[in-house]
Amino acid sequence: MRFDLAYDGTEFSGWARQPSRRTVCGVLEDTLSMVLREDVSLTVAGRTDAGVHAAGQVAHADLPESVDVAALPKRLARALPSDVRVFSARVVPAAFDARFSALRRHYEYRVTDAAFGAHPLRRLDTLAWPRPLDVPAMNVAAGLLLGEHDFCAFCKRREGATTIRELQRLELVRSADDGVITAFVSADAFCHSMVRSLIGALLAVGEGRKAVEWPASLLSLQGRASGVAVAPAHGLSLVRVDFPADAELAARAEATRRVRTLS
Amino acid sequence: MRFDLAYDGTEFSGWARQPSRRTVCGVLEDTLSMVLREDVSLTVAGRTDAGVHAAGQVAHADLPESVDVAALPKRLARALPSDVRVFSARVVPAAFDARFSALRRHYEYRVTDAAFGAHPLRRLDTLAWPRPLDVPAMNVAAGLLLGEHDFCAFCKRREGATTIRELQRLELVRSADDGVITAFVSADAFCHSMVRSLIGALLAVGEGRKAVEWPASLLSLQGRASGVAVAPAHGLSLVRVDFPADAELAARAEATRRVRTLS
Repeated sequence: MRFDLAYDGTEFSGWARQPSRRTVCGVLEDTLSMVLREDVSLTVAGRTDAGVHAAGQVAHADLPESVDVAALPKRLARALPSDVRVFSARVVPAAFDARFSALRRHYEYRVTDAAFGAHPLRRLDTLAWPRPLDVPAMNVAAGLLLGEHDFCAFCKRREGATTIRELQRLELVRSADDGVITAFVSADAFCHSMVRSLIGALLAVGEGRKAVEWPASLLSLQGRASGVAVAPAHGLSLVRVDFPADAELAARAEATRRVRTLS
Repeated sequence: MRFDLAYDGTEFSGWARQPSRRTVCGVLEDTLSMVLREDVSLTVAGRTDAGVHAAGQVAHADLPESVDVAALPKRLARALPSDVRVFSARVVPAAFDARFSALRRHYEYRVTDAAFGAHPLRRLDTLAWPRPLDVPAMNVAAGLLLGEHDFCAFCKRREGATTIRELQRLELVRSADDGVITAFVSADAFCHSMVRSLIGALLAVGEGRKAVEWPASLLSLQGRASGVAVAPAHGLSLVRVDFPADAELAARAEATRRVRTLS
């Protein structure tokens, strides 16, 4: 079963379960297990860090077919704390895997450089930057980072994990309405702290501390760049994850099954 | 001096100063007095209740001309708690009065009838309604309330205060994007609890408990209608206050002065 969900990351120690910490996965698995009277184990598309939000996170779990899917969002709304919501639950092909079937992750980062700071009702998901930001300069720097690269300069290294990623979108737009800047960031996948490191590098460009060529110049490094600050977590939200259509997933699974049968 | 400000009403006991309560006026006056080393007394356009938010509240104070107005929003951003922001401070004609010069107040009320509830990052300013709402029916009911009426059925009575108001806009729009319903409510002025009572009456229509004619039928009552629930505070925000242009204010003041001089 596939779950589409949203959360305010403020009071969570990130997605991944940790002993004696309040995590999104922990709260969701515990609540689902209670509501369904069944042990539930979730696999997620994007393991968000502490303080990072989600508007379009996706997770899956293997559940018996007897579960009343249509009624689940309302039942969960009553049982879950108000900082996490499951807005859709649906049966998907057995081949669906929230982590490995995901084609693309889309993040947004909100930052304001207004002298007065962030609007009170959006302060939980908007970084208040104390100096003016040059958005056109940031976009030039961003454009130089697009494409497939080894992003190790922007990643916290994890043993054995690749840091080669295809950055498909990195674009900043200042709202004509309220002046808030939103960075749109999309890739096939992200390594650990990559989005916030990219934003940290672009903020240095935006306030004029670094040249527009600087962030892309770090791509030639063999390890994490020491001069890149990781932008604060609370500006960041996972907004969407792209998956193949159900029919395509089912066809893929069938092809895999045939190959296995033939071999 | 005129202040334009915004706040998250969640942790405030409303605008008006009360002993030993955290109020918007109290926090602002105390912070302004500290920053300016001057006793500051604020007059406000809309005295919001406990839990009600503002995106475009307006207040004024009489301050010496020596105050550096341009630097004030940044200084206040450092001194104020993050749930209230002064986004503009400017010198206005002496005739400007945030309360008595105001021509029109605009409020918005956010409510969602999604089965899963409110988006976690907007739960502070969105009412989660547990049953589906018929927005077209609510808009028919709303249209019948427009114009100048005695709204005493929708007001908490205060001694000596008129309850005759001109309701200029009452319209509900469901977002095609996320399904959230926003009610736009504008009037020359509102009596106490009027917006939330109007919304409460429309919610009863929206879920089919009352006929579309019912809210307008209450206008003939001589006192508060017992059947009208006051909608929860947290869905409501004061979003804008209209004032005459500065030139017009100055001209008015001059005309008043002349009349006084002649008489």
